[in-house]
Amino acid sequence: MIRVGIAGVTGYTGVELVRLLRRHPEVEVRVGTSEHYQGQPPDRVYPHLQGEAEFPIVALEPGAFAGCDAVFLALPHGVAGRLAPALVEQGIRVIDLGADFRLRDPAAYQAWYRQEPPAPDWLRRAVYGLPELFREQIRGAQLVANPGCYPTACTLAAAPLIVHDLVDRRSLIFDAKSGVSGAGRGLSLGVHFAEVNENFKAYNIAGAHRHTPEIEQNLTALAGEPVTVTFTPHLVPMTRGILVTAYFQLKEPASATQLLDLYRTFYAGEPFVRIRPEGDLPQTKQVWGSNYCDIGLAVDRRTGRAVVVAAIDNLVKGAAGQAVQNLNLLWGLPETLGLEGLPVYP
Amino acid sequence: MIRVGIAGVTGYTGVELVRLLRRHPEVEVRVGTSEHYQGQPPDRVYPHLQGEAEFPIVALEPGAFAGCDAVFLALPHGVAGRLAPALVEQGIRVIDLGADFRLRDPAAYQAWYRQEPPAPDWLRRAVYGLPELFREQIRGAQLVANPGCYPTACTLAAAPLIVHDLVDRRSLIFDAKSGVSGAGRGLSLGVHFAEVNENFKAYNIAGAHRHTPEIEQNLTALAGEPVTVTFTPHLVPMTRGILVTAYFQLKEPASATQLLDLYRTFYAGEPFVRIRPEGDLPQTKQVWGSNYCDIGLAVDRRTGRAVVVAAIDNLVKGAAGQAVQNLNLLWGLPETLGLEGLPVYP
Amino acid sequence: MIRVGIAGVTGYTGVELVRLLRRHPEVEVRVGTSEHYQGQPPDRVYPHLQGEAEFPIVALEPGAFAGCDAVFLALPHGVAGRLAPALVEQGIRVIDLGADFRLRDPAAYQAWYRQEPPAPDWLRRAVYGLPELFREQIRGAQLVANPGCYPTACTLAAAPLIVHDLVDRRSLIFDAKSGVSGAGRGLSLGVHFAEVNENFKAYNIAGAHRHTPEIEQNLTALAGEPVTVTFTPHLVPMTRGILVTAYFQLKEPASATQLLDLYRTFYAGEPFVRIRPEGDLPQTKQVWGSNYCDIGLAVDRRTGRAVVVAAIDNLVKGAAGQAVQNLNLLWGLPETLGLEGLPVYP
Amino acid sequence: MIRVGIAGVTGYTGVELVRLLRRHPEVEVRVGTSEHYQGQPPDRVYPHLQGEAEFPIVALEPGAFAGCDAVFLALPHGVAGRLAPALVEQGIRVIDLGADFRLRDPAAYQAWYRQEPPAPDWLRRAVYGLPELFREQIRGAQLVANPGCYPTACTLAAAPLIVHDLVDRRSLIFDAKSGVSGAGRGLSLGVHFAEVNENFKAYNIAGAHRHTPEIEQNLTALAGEPVTVTFTPHLVPMTRGILVTAYFQLKEPASATQLLDLYRTFYAGEPFVRIRPEGDLPQTKQVWGSNYCDIGLAVDRRTGRAVVVAAIDNLVKGAAGQAVQNLNLLWGLPETLGLEGLPVYP
Repeated sequence: MIRVGIAGVTGYTGVELVRLLRRHPEVEVRVGTSEHYQGQPPDRVYPHLQGEAEFPIVALEPGAFAGCDAVFLALPHGVAGRLAPALVEQGIRVIDLGADFRLRDPAAYQAWYRQEPPAPDWLRRAVYGLPELFREQIRGAQLVANPGCYPTACTLAAAPLIVHDLVDRRSLIFDAKSGVSGAGRGLSLGVHFAEVNENFKAYNIAGAHRHTPEIEQNLTALAGEPVTVTFTPHLVPMTRGILVTAYFQLKEPASATQLLDLYRTFYAGEPFVRIRPEGDLPQTKQVWGSNYCDIGLAVDRRTGRAVVVAAIDNLVKGAAGQAVQNLNLLWGLPETLGLEGLPVYP
Repeated sequence: MIRVGIAGVTGYTGVELVRLLRRHPEVEVRVGTSEHYQGQPPDRVYPHLQGEAEFPIVALEPGAFAGCDAVFLALPHGVAGRLAPALVEQGIRVIDLGADFRLRDPAAYQAWYRQEPPAPDWLRRAVYGLPELFREQIRGAQLVANPGCYPTACTLAAAPLIVHDLVDRRSLIFDAKSGVSGAGRGLSLGVHFAEVNENFKAYNIAGAHRHTPEIEQNLTALAGEPVTVTFTPHLVPMTRGILVTAYFQLKEPASATQLLDLYRTFYAGEPFVRIRPEGDLPQTKQVWGSNYCDIGLAVDRRTGRAVVVAAIDNLVKGAAGQAVQNLNLLWGLPETLGLEGLPVYP
Repeated sequence: MIRVGIAGVTGYTGVELVRLLRRHPEVEVRVGTSEHYQGQPPDRVYPHLQGEAEFPIVALEPGAFAGCDAVFLALPHGVAGRLAPALVEQGIRVIDLGADFRLRDPAAYQAWYRQEPPAPDWLRRAVYGLPELFREQIRGAQLVANPGCYPTACTLAAAPLIVHDLVDRRSLIFDAKSGVSGAGRGLSLGVHFAEVNENFKAYNIAGAHRHTPEIEQNLTALAGEPVTVTFTPHLVPMTRGILVTAYFQLKEPASATQLLDLYRTFYAGEPFVRIRPEGDLPQTKQVWGSNYCDIGLAVDRRTGRAVVVAAIDNLVKGAAGQAVQNLNLLWGLPETLGLEGLPVYP
Repeated sequence: MIRVGIAGVTGYTGVELVRLLRRHPEVEVRVGTSEHYQGQPPDRVYPHLQGEAEFPIVALEPGAFAGCDAVFLALPHGVAGRLAPALVEQGIRVIDLGADFRLRDPAAYQAWYRQEPPAPDWLRRAVYGLPELFREQIRGAQLVANPGCYPTACTLAAAPLIVHDLVDRRSLIFDAKSGVSGAGRGLSLGVHFAEVNENFKAYNIAGAHRHTPEIEQNLTALAGEPVTVTFTPHLVPMTRGILVTAYFQLKEPASATQLLDLYRTFYAGEPFVRIRPEGDLPQTKQVWGSNYCDIGLAVDRRTGRAVVVAAIDNLVKGAAGQAVQNLNLLWGLPETLGLEGLPVYP
């Protein structure tokens, strides 16, 4: 059994890890940490866990993870970066679900997060945990930077077109829509029910959202030359789900049939990427609660654009599920272990 | 492996059975039937099943279930009743998720459904499949009448008080609230998004809902004398979940502490009934996607009433999950097999 | 023009007053107060007001309402009670939308709010502002205690049966369901979108909610003898609306037809109470955004109970709309002025 | 008083016209038509209208609108086109809220609707009813083609940039999101609550939606040369509201400040277009129930794109409200008459 700790276990990402790991046959959650709920049993914080979670919740202190083989960090940026190196040096493998190790370039971190990267020397030691693109690097990693929710969907939607150099790289637009759980469990007017319900809005548009450089870093790596994108996040009045509508100017005319074949080949054998048949498009509810990334597309022949649509559950493939997938890779387990649950529909 | 068929597999109850059975280690779904979608692959009807369901969907014809050990019927009332006896006589065990075998008294069926019971001789051969109260009878059954969603929650909420004869039996009021999936996948203005969203209503009140006699039959059996209840269903603008608020006039004063002790003892060892600690009450989201029935209560000392609150997922403990629980009982398997998934929260 | 001030203008009740008064031909909003947003223009706090609100937002200080003829108080309990007497003594008519003047009995206030009533001498000088029952007293009032949202719906649902002495007074149960805006704009986990959406729960049950004594005070006044009730509030995943399902044990058998006649007669001429025809029941969406209270009922002959269902918009008839109705009464204006808007459907 | 008829009064557009016209001081609704509900009183079809609508609902027959000065057509395409010319010839002014007269080019109608235009000779006699751009033509019209919901928002979002020739005309992308009421009151799985709730999807993408040629016709008229666009509609789990996120490649660098000034000047004096201050963006809830179109924008300097966001209520500015605005223009009334209601927030 892999003994696991979860830092920030009472946030939505943390509690989703608890749900997934509870049914993972090779993992035992030994301890969680929380700033606000230390000392409380998990089911007092989350009554749905009654009878399903026995680990202690303790303060985030140096010895909190003694005896753990792996630790998931679901912490605010800045905090994870200060903690991770010490854990790795204790021989613990770390999967960070935050932003501190995602950007390779310290200057980019500084520019987008307006502070020094907390562990600049580790930026290049961390492996970016998007298994579909970087599986081999992940296997041997000690520190995995689990991708952001939006970058997961955007990168998987774009990768085949970028790798095959089919699109004008200055044309990329990602119009993304997310459920509210992506904003976490913290309190703000932005997650107040009466403000969000029966409402739809854009936020942090035109290059203001911190997931922008992460998407660009991924696509630049795939393209082999710099890629700059326009990324627009929106808030949907629902709890879970991300849908990305991505626009690409094609260099040469291509049909949806051709592009779908390309996508199917590119993702052949991937357990968690499903390509929709022509004429069908993914919907967030069709991946709800699961680790799937569903992708569909169409070609607008009148304008020469490919429109690619990708859907994930932001808390699963966009966070906790992908982290479990990475854990499985680190330990050489079947990648789907603990992630077999079907989407819950309706 | 238990070879299973699902009649009415494309309704919400049918597809929830598919979700649960997909991860059941002892069950293989061999065939489904559908009036509208016969001949189509399951993932054309429900794209979320892509890669997850290979069984054929055929017409509901006599030989449809040849080779099956068990069949779940998720059919309109009237239809199941005509089908079930023939299946049982072929040696197939049948779990009917509809209403045709729930009421023991043919006259009651006639009165509430305004038609002859389709298989009156079988009403007493069927076993009512509420495991927490009738586990032993279920084990040997050939035909299980899976309880209605509302009656499951109402009966479990009331049983300890009725069995221990603590309440005035003329005082029972069940004010119940259900998510929209309880109305099924059929089309009507009553499930039109724009009519339901941001709306709350009561329907079929004051003894008009067909679950009323089922609740009364259960409580009468527990009480040993006739029990009549007021049952009021409401529609909540959400997809899944039932919450029942039940009112009982206590014969003698009792504290919440005493009653909660009684409930904990009554349901001791039950894997799917969770009693909330004093001061806490269940919420539908805390059982979402799971087979749990959560129960909490308080006593209104000023009026001498116990107010009991029970929550289930109408598609799981209220339908497909309870049916799987019954299947496990029929085959002598651990009752929780295939039902281990935690509630999905948030 | 009546010059009006609104204390607590940036809460949901305050901003709903702004909406209604904006189209009131006899009212001008001169000033609002806010603890958090003083000095900001209204449309910075609420962008939907762009171009529609020019009044200043100031601190809640003694001279804030100089020059006003009337002031609405939409403040936390305790605060309004300390402010109102001074305003009245300046000759300003006050409509308090909070709880400080609703209960006549200082001991009741002390018991339910766990603090001294802030202005005990004024409890009997205030008039309870439910126009359908206390219209004449309101006309001459200087200080109006605007009813709570739940008590408005519960009292209007019960009044005809109580006044005509048709029901067992120990039998009254009010099972009430409210949209989330009733909890106000303050931040808490209880209004966090991801916790509320796709969830349904009861709270403060069994005599714990502070609206209980207000309902009892109203019904006791109508009955002429003490009435104690069981009141159970629930939270519905929607923004606006209250639906109350009220249970009454009838002293003598009566038909729905008879009781509906009684209700129609009782509320004859009331501009804001609509009695549904037999067989139909109100829904919250059918009063959404309007000042209507819709009432329907049925009789459960099997148990001898009348089940009465009432629906209001908690922010209109349950708060701001009723306050405007009271203002119209105070100034001898047509009671519907400013309140003519139809429900917004769907 | 203008005597008005509404064809298709029981659809969502029809009943929204009823709501708005009920408070219009110069209009009296004399008659409505309905295929399904003829002969019923309006409040049996829509109980929220109890006491608020007395007009008869009749069949859509030749003499249905005798005595009317104006008729609103809220009918399926094809039907309105056959009806409108006869009405105009009777001297009745017609505002068609459907698609039959929006496209000037009969071939375009044929191509997108796959049938002959029902009244090809009238395509150029009809005036396109977008007052902010075509006010003068509307004043004298006999037949107004009320714009589609999406084209209203897209065109208003783009007009200043197109008119001032600031953007690459091949770069236009409109990523649009709509609430469910835009799909009407008809029954389909696509509006089934359990399928839509907690779901987000794209549909009719890549040049498949029939509003595409309408947007292009408008922008082509403004540009003076052909404009082709990529238009992507999405379905949001909410009842009302459209948000359009529009992407434009700027010919020359420009700041948000400069562009916002341009927009403010372009729409100066418009009663229903509100430009958000820099740094703020519109949200659908901020126009909910009102005739406003709110617009905000930002510039992505890294990619040289302007990102413009526009929000409307699809049933008001996107349908019934704009139709009333057009009626006011036809009769020379203040354009805001009957449309003064503030957005309902929250």
